[in-house]
Amino acid sequence: MDRPEIILAPGPTPVPPEVYLAQGSPLVYHRGPAFGRMLREVTERLQRLYRTDRDVLIFTSSGTGGLESAVANCFSPGEAVLVPLAGYFAERFAKIALAYGLTVRTIDYQWGQTVKAADVAAALSKQPAKAVLLTQSETSTGVVHDIESIARAAKEAGALVMVDAVSSLGAVPFDFEGWGIDVAVSGSQKALSASPGLAFAAVSDAAWGAQGEAKNPRFYFDWTYYKQFFALPDPENPWTPAISVLQGLRAALELYYQDGPEAAFARHELLSRAIKEGVRALGLDLFGEDAERAWTVTAIRVPDGLDADTICARVRSDFAIILAPGQGPLKGKVFRIGHLGYYDRLDMIRGLAALEMTLERLGYPVKRGAAVAAAEDVFAQAE
Amino acid sequence: MDRPEIILAPGPTPVPPEVYLAQGSPLVYHRGPAFGRMLREVTERLQRLYRTDRDVLIFTSSGTGGLESAVANCFSPGEAVLVPLAGYFAERFAKIALAYGLTVRTIDYQWGQTVKAADVAAALSKQPAKAVLLTQSETSTGVVHDIESIARAAKEAGALVMVDAVSSLGAVPFDFEGWGIDVAVSGSQKALSASPGLAFAAVSDAAWGAQGEAKNPRFYFDWTYYKQFFALPDPENPWTPAISVLQGLRAALELYYQDGPEAAFARHELLSRAIKEGVRALGLDLFGEDAERAWTVTAIRVPDGLDADTICARVRSDFAIILAPGQGPLKGKVFRIGHLGYYDRLDMIRGLAALEMTLERLGYPVKRGAAVAAAEDVFAQAE
Repeated sequence: MDRPEIILAPGPTPVPPEVYLAQGSPLVYHRGPAFGRMLREVTERLQRLYRTDRDVLIFTSSGTGGLESAVANCFSPGEAVLVPLAGYFAERFAKIALAYGLTVRTIDYQWGQTVKAADVAAALSKQPAKAVLLTQSETSTGVVHDIESIARAAKEAGALVMVDAVSSLGAVPFDFEGWGIDVAVSGSQKALSASPGLAFAAVSDAAWGAQGEAKNPRFYFDWTYYKQFFALPDPENPWTPAISVLQGLRAALELYYQDGPEAAFARHELLSRAIKEGVRALGLDLFGEDAERAWTVTAIRVPDGLDADTICARVRSDFAIILAPGQGPLKGKVFRIGHLGYYDRLDMIRGLAALEMTLERLGYPVKRGAAVAAAEDVFAQAE
Repeated sequence: MDRPEIILAPGPTPVPPEVYLAQGSPLVYHRGPAFGRMLREVTERLQRLYRTDRDVLIFTSSGTGGLESAVANCFSPGEAVLVPLAGYFAERFAKIALAYGLTVRTIDYQWGQTVKAADVAAALSKQPAKAVLLTQSETSTGVVHDIESIARAAKEAGALVMVDAVSSLGAVPFDFEGWGIDVAVSGSQKALSASPGLAFAAVSDAAWGAQGEAKNPRFYFDWTYYKQFFALPDPENPWTPAISVLQGLRAALELYYQDGPEAAFARHELLSRAIKEGVRALGLDLFGEDAERAWTVTAIRVPDGLDADTICARVRSDFAIILAPGQGPLKGKVFRIGHLGYYDRLDMIRGLAALEMTLERLGYPVKRGAAVAAAEDVFAQAE
């Protein structure tokens, strides 16, 4: 019997039944009062999550499209940006900037290191940049960077701060206004537990100012159109959006706000800790600096003699659970367990049990139940 | 009781229950064999519909995003394109080209006129262009342009031929190879009757050649990534796609191919004729040249003393049927009935009856049942 595979990878994340029902329900026509109400409701809930009342624009695209919108809207060719590189998604942000002809200066970290505010301050004092491009949750390493302190350093140097918050918004705290962020991009298919297909960007006044002068070409992602059409009496998207995904996102946000952001953050922290203690109880080492902050995805060093890709392949073939392999230089050396989004405690237990059984099958010495017991310890202490 | 509104606008079009179920079913993880099979199956069916075995690339975006991909991938700033302008969507294609710094030369028709191959040949012989940007079904006027003859003229002048086939592919014949098309863009939410959120582009060898030299910036829509990731043993999208919409599109294509393209074209022709005869039986005039070819949407001149927007608003408020108002210079003067996609005969009857009752309520002299009778005549003759 084919059962759906169980996703324990960092996005797309599991989708609640209410969301499936909403995205499988009759389409709301994209011009008219019903759509306008839906778009406004979703936008307002996203604003609340970003902690801002600035524009939040919604695009039909992956998160990468949302990041491209920031680069296409705010810069002219040749302008300089500073990108601290410490993983796959930071590199993607840099690649987008390069594709648009920006001068990309990097701070090169080992993958798994955290970006330090002092490094950003030092780099900007040596050579100013129009903006700093940051990644909050670096999905490839699990690291959740300290955007607050880095943003402060960037603002003090007069740079705009643009944040890839794709796999972090809703899972860990974010404070667009309090941290002085200029652009923050996220997506539907991560902590919010809707289906993939929508990206969003929160935009500060300073970013709008940059947008007004920016010469990079843009049309589909041109923020101006999104703002114009949202301002209609019945708000619209300029182009026909992924209506069904938006219906699902509305249902997902409805669920999310039943308990609210603080409860969601606490849940992510708890589940993250359960996974980490479970993995450690098997004698495995976590990967990445400051792992306790890695509430969205746990990166795990593979034990000597084993291959991380093999672990992922076997967990998937034997238990229909999808873990994430290592990317780039971490391929084969690291595997990752995603715990952002619509998860609760038994989802973690299930994943850890599958990991125990798989490691044993691969010849790694496992004390059966050890990881599960460690996770139960975490849950018991939290009560 | 809130019933879903009935869409008789040219897209998004009605979605069959099978498609709703598929897009509301558990997500297929976007990296792995099951997703690879789905992406390959959808791609092959789209290739068959385009009549090509060249690459068909699938983007998470609206049709506009697919058009932008053609402009971003095939050109460098300053290169010249010829755009025959005869409606809203031709103007959009031109705007995208302008946004990317192309030199846009136009042939300016009245909205509702058909683009003539001789005009294109004359324009290109006066001033060559790298490409001609065409719109097959000009949704704003109903006109279905004769791409075959226009493309021939363009090819003879050495220009690439790029076609917006968003609201036409699957509803009217298309022949990518036979007509010598270089890029043809379409979308999920039109004749194929899936939900909006996916666009596709078929790409010729010559277009790939242009892509290799083109300097316009691109990342999210960069065709190279889509081709690379499709070539994996389990085909993928480069960025996380709108998986649920793709699941729906697979189900929609499954339905579409139960009868196949020829049956779909014949159905579109028949329903179009029924609407046109029904409208004429009410004494209304069709808008647009060569209206018999307008199989996707019928544009109707509003009777003297009435306003087209009012007709649309009343049909929607009184009967929950969504017609499309006139765009641009046709606002208030023209309204449109969409009949592309998942429609059958009684859907047309229902729409005509609502139109009859609405016109009567607005004081226009209506012989009750006249439009419906005319449509029934068309259906009877077709048996």
